[in-house]
Amino acid sequence: DRQPLPDGIGERLAAQLRFIAEADKLKTILRASPLAAADRRENDAEHSWHLALMVILLAEYADEPIDVGHAVRLVVIHDLVEIYAGDSPVFVPGAAADQVEREEAAAERLFGLLPADQAAEIRALWDEFEAGRTPEARFGKAMDRLEPMLLNWLDGGGTWQLPGATESTVRAREAGVVAGSTSLGSFTGQLVDEGLRRGWIRPDEA
Amino acid sequence: DRQPLPDGIGERLAAQLRFIAEADKLKTILRASPLAAADRRENDAEHSWHLALMVILLAEYADEPIDVGHAVRLVVIHDLVEIYAGDSPVFVPGAAADQVEREEAAAERLFGLLPADQAAEIRALWDEFEAGRTPEARFGKAMDRLEPMLLNWLDGGGTWQLPGATESTVRAREAGVVAGSTSLGSFTGQLVDEGLRRGWIRPDEA
Ligand SMILES: [Ca+2]
Repeated sequence: DRQPLPDGIGERLAAQLRFIAEADKLKTILRASPLAAADRRENDAEHSWHLALMVILLAEYADEPIDVGHAVRLVVIHDLVEIYAGDSPVFVPGAAADQVEREEAAAERLFGLLPADQAAEIRALWDEFEAGRTPEARFGKAMDRLEPMLLNWLDGGGTWQLPGATESTVRAREAGVVAGSTSLGSFTGQLVDEGLRRGWIRPDEA
Repeated sequence: DRQPLPDGIGERLAAQLRFIAEADKLKTILRASPLAAADRRENDAEHSWHLALMVILLAEYADEPIDVGHAVRLVVIHDLVEIYAGDSPVFVPGAAADQVEREEAAAERLFGLLPADQAAEIRALWDEFEAGRTPEARFGKAMDRLEPMLLNWLDGGGTWQLPGATESTVRAREAGVVAGSTSLGSFTGQLVDEGLRRGWIRPDEA
């Protein structure tokens, strides 16, 4: 029911605009994380924007020097495949089954809407992020771990209260922050320690 | 009711994280524009993300060469002041009264949460964008005009149906696209011409 673009646009621009229109769907993919500012869950587009802002403001804590503009590009595109593959919440047992295959297929389908040169460029950015191959990718992934931790903290629990969340699964997320930033990883450790003390995170044996 | 950060974080990082938490509110600031992918209005965080994606994919159409990473940073921060100043919808008569003063005051208050060096840095980015002082700012502003035009098109009307929207007010928005990109301005002109033909935009004398 979306209106098709008018005729007479060049094929390259038309393909790019159809991709940009399809990308609107990222605003409808809900994550498990609660917003700090309202009583609802966050969507992937909002999340991606928040990561971009965090990269800009926290770049000084990266363990290796990063190109901020490049890191921002990585986080802007990192969740696009979830338009077709859906979000895979970490603390919901089984939710991540086949995630790699589903996201791989989604990348083929989604990036394939773009002109071939741009499909390859965006695919390369996505692969770089997923593999954590560069300092920018490792720092972007650290933000992708830190942001929901911060939202959980502000919420006084958030997804830490889901069935699959216990100290060890939360600590595994903390490790993703450490991998990009020792100092932000240490801050995240403080959040988790204090979250355990307050009963917002369950110890493993509980 | 948001949980304060735990004690024992350095003051600089604490200030940055409080800003990042406050920025969560951008996800609750509603724009007039309809989403293409769902039956609801867009919020400022989603909008800012969509502009970042458009900068990445459409940079080749900028009239002057742009640093894509820099342009992406500009659009990521460009609407933050609306957390306190609110959105000023263009087609709602009177909604933009005092907009400059309100946004100026909001910038002082919001960016003032950051450490002084970063407050100055983010303020400079915001000023650069607002003034359209650089090729990156002009292209970012072009995306800020083009994105709601595209959403209106996909919706078959959108904010073009609001009381204050007629051909001349819509053409004034088109001019903001032209200022950053002749070719995307020409595409926008096609959307407006065809929108008029289909009755999605009112002629001035109607
Ligand atoms: Ca993710």
